[in-house]
Amino acid sequence: MPQHTERVKEILSWYSSDNAGTLTNLSRLLNHGRLAGTGKLVILPVDQGFEHGPARSFAPNPAGYDPDYHFQLAIEAGCNAYAAPLGFIEAGAARFAGQIPLILKVNNSDSLSKLGGAPCSAVTAGVKDAIRLGCVAIGYTIYPGSDARNTQLEELRDLTAEAKANGLAVVVWSYPRGGGVSKDGETAIDVAAYAAQIAAQMGAHIIKVKPPTEFLEQGEAKKVYEKQNIPIKTLSERVRHVVQSAFNGKRIVIFSGGPAKGTEEVLAEIKGIKEGGAFGSIMGRNAFQRPKAEALKLLDQVMKIYES
Amino acid sequence: MPQHTERVKEILSWYSSDNAGTLTNLSRLLNHGRLAGTGKLVILPVDQGFEHGPARSFAPNPAGYDPDYHFQLAIEAGCNAYAAPLGFIEAGAARFAGQIPLILKVNNSDSLSKLGGAPCSAVTAGVKDAIRLGCVAIGYTIYPGSDARNTQLEELRDLTAEAKANGLAVVVWSYPRGGGVSKDGETAIDVAAYAAQIAAQMGAHIIKVKPPTEFLEQGEAKKVYEKQNIPIKTLSERVRHVVQSAFNGKRIVIFSGGPAKGTEEVLAEIKGIKEGGAFGSIMGRNAFQRPKAEALKLLDQVMKIYES
Amino acid sequence: MPQHTERVKEILSWYSSDNAGTLTNLSRLLNHGRLAGTGKLVILPVDQGFEHGPARSFAPNPAGYDPDYHFQLAIEAGCNAYAAPLGFIEAGAARFAGQIPLILKVNNSDSLSKLGGAPCSAVTAGVKDAIRLGCVAIGYTIYPGSDARNTQLEELRDLTAEAKANGLAVVVWSYPRGGGVSKDGETAIDVAAYAAQIAAQMGAHIIKVKPPTEFLEQGEAKKVYEKQNIPIKTLSERVRHVVQSAFNGKRIVIFSGGPAKGTEEVLAEIKGIKEGGAFGSIMGRNAFQRPKAEALKLLDQVMKIYES
Amino acid sequence: MPQHTERVKEILSWYSSDNAGTLTNLSRLLNHGRLAGTGKLVILPVDQGFEHGPARSFAPNPAGYDPDYHFQLAIEAGCNAYAAPLGFIEAGAARFAGQIPLILKVNNSDSLSKLGGAPCSAVTAGVKDAIRLGCVAIGYTIYPGSDARNTQLEELRDLTAEAKANGLAVVVWSYPRGGGVSKDGETAIDVAAYAAQIAAQMGAHIIKVKPPTEFLEQGEAKKVYEKQNIPIKTLSERVRHVVQSAFNGKRIVIFSGGPAKGTEEVLAEIKGIKEGGAFGSIMGRNAFQRPKAEALKLLDQVMKIYES
Amino acid sequence: MPQHTERVKEILSWYSSDNAGTLTNLSRLLNHGRLAGTGKLVILPVDQGFEHGPARSFAPNPAGYDPDYHFQLAIEAGCNAYAAPLGFIEAGAARFAGQIPLILKVNNSDSLSKLGGAPCSAVTAGVKDAIRLGCVAIGYTIYPGSDARNTQLEELRDLTAEAKANGLAVVVWSYPRGGGVSKDGETAIDVAAYAAQIAAQMGAHIIKVKPPTEFLEQGEAKKVYEKQNIPIKTLSERVRHVVQSAFNGKRIVIFSGGPAKGTEEVLAEIKGIKEGGAFGSIMGRNAFQRPKAEALKLLDQVMKIYES
Repeated sequence: MPQHTERVKEILSWYSSDNAGTLTNLSRLLNHGRLAGTGKLVILPVDQGFEHGPARSFAPNPAGYDPDYHFQLAIEAGCNAYAAPLGFIEAGAARFAGQIPLILKVNNSDSLSKLGGAPCSAVTAGVKDAIRLGCVAIGYTIYPGSDARNTQLEELRDLTAEAKANGLAVVVWSYPRGGGVSKDGETAIDVAAYAAQIAAQMGAHIIKVKPPTEFLEQGEAKKVYEKQNIPIKTLSERVRHVVQSAFNGKRIVIFSGGPAKGTEEVLAEIKGIKEGGAFGSIMGRNAFQRPKAEALKLLDQVMKIYES
Repeated sequence: MPQHTERVKEILSWYSSDNAGTLTNLSRLLNHGRLAGTGKLVILPVDQGFEHGPARSFAPNPAGYDPDYHFQLAIEAGCNAYAAPLGFIEAGAARFAGQIPLILKVNNSDSLSKLGGAPCSAVTAGVKDAIRLGCVAIGYTIYPGSDARNTQLEELRDLTAEAKANGLAVVVWSYPRGGGVSKDGETAIDVAAYAAQIAAQMGAHIIKVKPPTEFLEQGEAKKVYEKQNIPIKTLSERVRHVVQSAFNGKRIVIFSGGPAKGTEEVLAEIKGIKEGGAFGSIMGRNAFQRPKAEALKLLDQVMKIYES
Repeated sequence: MPQHTERVKEILSWYSSDNAGTLTNLSRLLNHGRLAGTGKLVILPVDQGFEHGPARSFAPNPAGYDPDYHFQLAIEAGCNAYAAPLGFIEAGAARFAGQIPLILKVNNSDSLSKLGGAPCSAVTAGVKDAIRLGCVAIGYTIYPGSDARNTQLEELRDLTAEAKANGLAVVVWSYPRGGGVSKDGETAIDVAAYAAQIAAQMGAHIIKVKPPTEFLEQGEAKKVYEKQNIPIKTLSERVRHVVQSAFNGKRIVIFSGGPAKGTEEVLAEIKGIKEGGAFGSIMGRNAFQRPKAEALKLLDQVMKIYES
Repeated sequence: MPQHTERVKEILSWYSSDNAGTLTNLSRLLNHGRLAGTGKLVILPVDQGFEHGPARSFAPNPAGYDPDYHFQLAIEAGCNAYAAPLGFIEAGAARFAGQIPLILKVNNSDSLSKLGGAPCSAVTAGVKDAIRLGCVAIGYTIYPGSDARNTQLEELRDLTAEAKANGLAVVVWSYPRGGGVSKDGETAIDVAAYAAQIAAQMGAHIIKVKPPTEFLEQGEAKKVYEKQNIPIKTLSERVRHVVQSAFNGKRIVIFSGGPAKGTEEVLAEIKGIKEGGAFGSIMGRNAFQRPKAEALKLLDQVMKIYES
Repeated sequence: MPQHTERVKEILSWYSSDNAGTLTNLSRLLNHGRLAGTGKLVILPVDQGFEHGPARSFAPNPAGYDPDYHFQLAIEAGCNAYAAPLGFIEAGAARFAGQIPLILKVNNSDSLSKLGGAPCSAVTAGVKDAIRLGCVAIGYTIYPGSDARNTQLEELRDLTAEAKANGLAVVVWSYPRGGGVSKDGETAIDVAAYAAQIAAQMGAHIIKVKPPTEFLEQGEAKKVYEKQNIPIKTLSERVRHVVQSAFNGKRIVIFSGGPAKGTEEVLAEIKGIKEGGAFGSIMGRNAFQRPKAEALKLLDQVMKIYES
């Protein structure tokens, strides 16, 4: 293991209440792959098979039906980590042991059930699974705005306590959704910043949010944004505000890209995110739904942006 | 115990994250009965007494009221395993100890209660029961599409974790049903493939689904099937797609036959399933509702198809 | 303790997966009282105080307000066992220790609360209570057809697992009721047979049902009864079908009598039940609501029928 | 400690299934204060601050805002015990240690929340609290007739099992209320007798009910009261029927007085209750809402009635 | 550590049933900062990021986005303690270890979810977190009047028992809200006094309420306030009544200030609160939303009032 860079030392200093085990696993994430030591992260997540179904996820690039494929893609691209649900992780954890840090997604939704205004993922794995499979972290999705808030936050709280006691890191996907937010509000800047704050207050080490829009959802918040003149016109400004909302940048915040799109669009978005001070990207469909060579090329371009 | 065939070695290699106990029990399933070592399985399941009531299940062949009958049928036919709820397993587990691998069905429905759009079987047995009764696996039914999704997946997650820690295998019956799917959608090819994926992501070792129809249920999925031209015209094509959807064929997927029907129909269906690359069949009513001699003959013909 | 009769040996052989503790307690039930060794049982149950209220239960024979009375009645009549809720059992368990096998009724309803289509008794005692009070079994009521099916079956499953691990027997009262059955359907023959099957599949050692009527409730079942010509005209035929539905007679099935009625009616019913192959009767109100001398006389006549 | 009187010996003999610890604490209740040894009890309960609010409870006699006051009142009056919620007990348990038997009220309601037909108190303390605070018993309120029946009875069952295992006694406040009873029915004689029976069947050592009225609530019960001619005209007759309904007088049944009223009314009621064979009174508002001297005088008069 | 002042000794004597660990932590709160030994407390709470969102909370003084800022503010101002949710506490607990007593807010709401008449915060941290982070107390919010009363009180009861067993103190925020109170009733004097009583009966060591208005919410209470002529005209009178309602002043009651306002208004309110006999103030937005110098000046003025 290399010595820590100054940036990694600085980042780890923000988590000084954590035990040595958790700091070790955080440093594994920060010190793996092409961006090792830079304080930036690019993570490959593959939970769309569970969340959207197999054909919608893997038919565009059928190699992705195979769980080994994603381990190989993450390793070859030099990602910091690979994140997936229990089945996908189990299918390769022994075969690829020690070759890529793993994040076990411990809750998941599907697109078949109807849950109305109270969306809430099912807990599908646990901390003990993460430990037996050699993972560095668990991942959990919350839907701020859901009427099932208490169920979600209390599950997260229990899993987080267990993870930290066992020396794992905690990654929270914070996606506003449910009875308390409008469709536009799901990506509104005030709501996105709020979602980042909630994840940080819950004790997350790494927070994943979607790139926010200029929309303002909540009346009380809108007044403040206007009175205080908070800059939210450009994507970079909005990313900067979200990062500030996660403990003034003292929590690792990374951004997803959403639906698959053209390469230029993706890279332009990543540039905006990077300029806003984000700690990195989590890129799923835009990576694994392309043929492998194209995916490796795209990830190379993304990492170049973060290296610049 | 015989040495593993190459095919059994290959299948076990897909489960390399499992402990030796679970691998042992998986190999017992693969190495028992007439299909031992072929990588194919024919399993006798008898839970209809619980699910549909005794007269509907056993009056056509009253020998089936007796729990011993099904142990004997499975043993004489050379099935890989016999699967049933707690009562039926307890009634013969000591008497027939070691003569046939047992799968304890740990949740069950009945046809008396009204649960609307949130169908969810009751947990009727547990991992400790499976252990004390000498079973090789537990079996659990999920209804993808049910509004009770979280309850089901979280129960399955707990039972799976306990089963794996105790060296048992996990068989998941994945039957779409509930508020999120139409009546036709319950057997739609996109939904069936999705149901297999969910079971695989939950960590199932063996997945049981129904033969799917050509129907496409979900709008977003339909677009993909059409755009990607996924072949779903014949039963074999559809079975192939479902098997692919379970980790590119790296999980054991077997098919049920549904309501009792004529011998020719049954055998034609099995041929289609076999040609699609399925790992085998689970055949209940079509077996135990015939007189024993006829049932043995039918199972002989089914196994011949899988041996061919 | 006497040597087991051939009949008792045969009955115990059906429960060969159970541990020695449970077999010992089953044999205590089968070897106590006037019917000891015959394989027949007459049990005195007194839970009506809880279920219907004290005046409706005990005012007709006020001696019954006193918990000691029922212990004495069961002992003097030579019953196989006495079954009651926690309070009644605690009131005499030490005083009458070892004089009569006790069944602790661990869940109970009352007639005051409104629970609509989801009837579900409250758990009012547990396996540890049964052990500290010297009981041979626990008793639990399920309402097949209730929308609270899962709660009930899962409670029963937990209590059954704990009871069996602790060497106790399990008696299940299976009374169809709730949103899934009509008023007539509560005693329909198809539903009664189904109720016995569910209890057996749940792992019950002894199953208590009500004498069924000729009514057929469920459309799908009706077709089978008619097609297969299942005889259900006489009470004996119906009892025979219910006993067959409980694992072909390999589970102990006993029948209750329902509301208090005239002696002749009671005895005629018992004869029909006996001719149908039932293992015995559980007789509450018809016994304890008569003056003691009359109750002893009636129980004597009932036992004579089973001895014949 | 004095030797037990014959009456105390008789009462303790009804609880012979209890362990020595519980018998010891029951005897502490029966052998403390002015009525020690008589088999009669007068208990001071102060939970109105929680249930009705502080001003409604204590403004009439502001000394009662202070938790010490009630300990002193119970001690000076020579009550058998003082019963209160966690906060009030904690405030004086160490200061007044050993001077008065304490009953910890472990569940409580307030008058602020709306719970409709499913009234159910919150569990606000537990058996471990009772032990660390030196209490002789826990107290728990049930609302027979509430749609939350199962929650209440199952909580009571758990607390009772834990209390008995730890050598504590159990006092049950049984107050009919909720969707299953009319306003008049809450104090109807049939319902009151039923409420006493339920508490006794749940395993309570001491049962507290309200003085019942002549009203008959339930149709089925009414028929029996009329047919059997059960005397319910006078308060004494009704009290006698309630005591009989609690295991023929083999459980300790005490009566509350309800809203504060004039001294003459109170004493007349107590006389009626005493003549009916009650074991004593629990007197809250009528005691602590008067100036201390008057309260002591009233309690003196009450105890005189029970001594007579 | 200094010797206890007479006032601190007196205050600690009210908690004599608590163990030495809890008394030690209570004394740490009373003996820290500028008001050490006076029996008065000024606490800095910062949970608005979670409850109202980051921009609404921190944009007016962006230094507050940073978790370190609030530790520093509380330390420099000489507050008795700093209270915040898990994330904020974890961010500084190691860095500022031992410099300021910490209160871990273990449940939290947000302004995104819709919960109607049953407001109930999510449990977001626990006693074990408080211990590993070196906190002296946990903080928990109840909403008296919420239809989720039982969930809240039972969570509080469990956390309180665990906290006390582990030597921590318990601070309860008691904020009436929900289906049982009108908008005006949330700050009504009768409801505020009732809210303080409930917290005290639940076993809280320190109770935080809002300054009440002259409004009377509940009909039954109103009659008593008028009949007994309870003085509630001035803020001081109302504060005095609330303090009396918390065990006659034998529980520590502190007051919050609510929405940010002008300095004069704040100081006038604090004077009224102090004159009413309150034990201190908890001041969040009025402190951290001002520039640091102004916040320090305001807190200096507030403490001067309590010193006077």
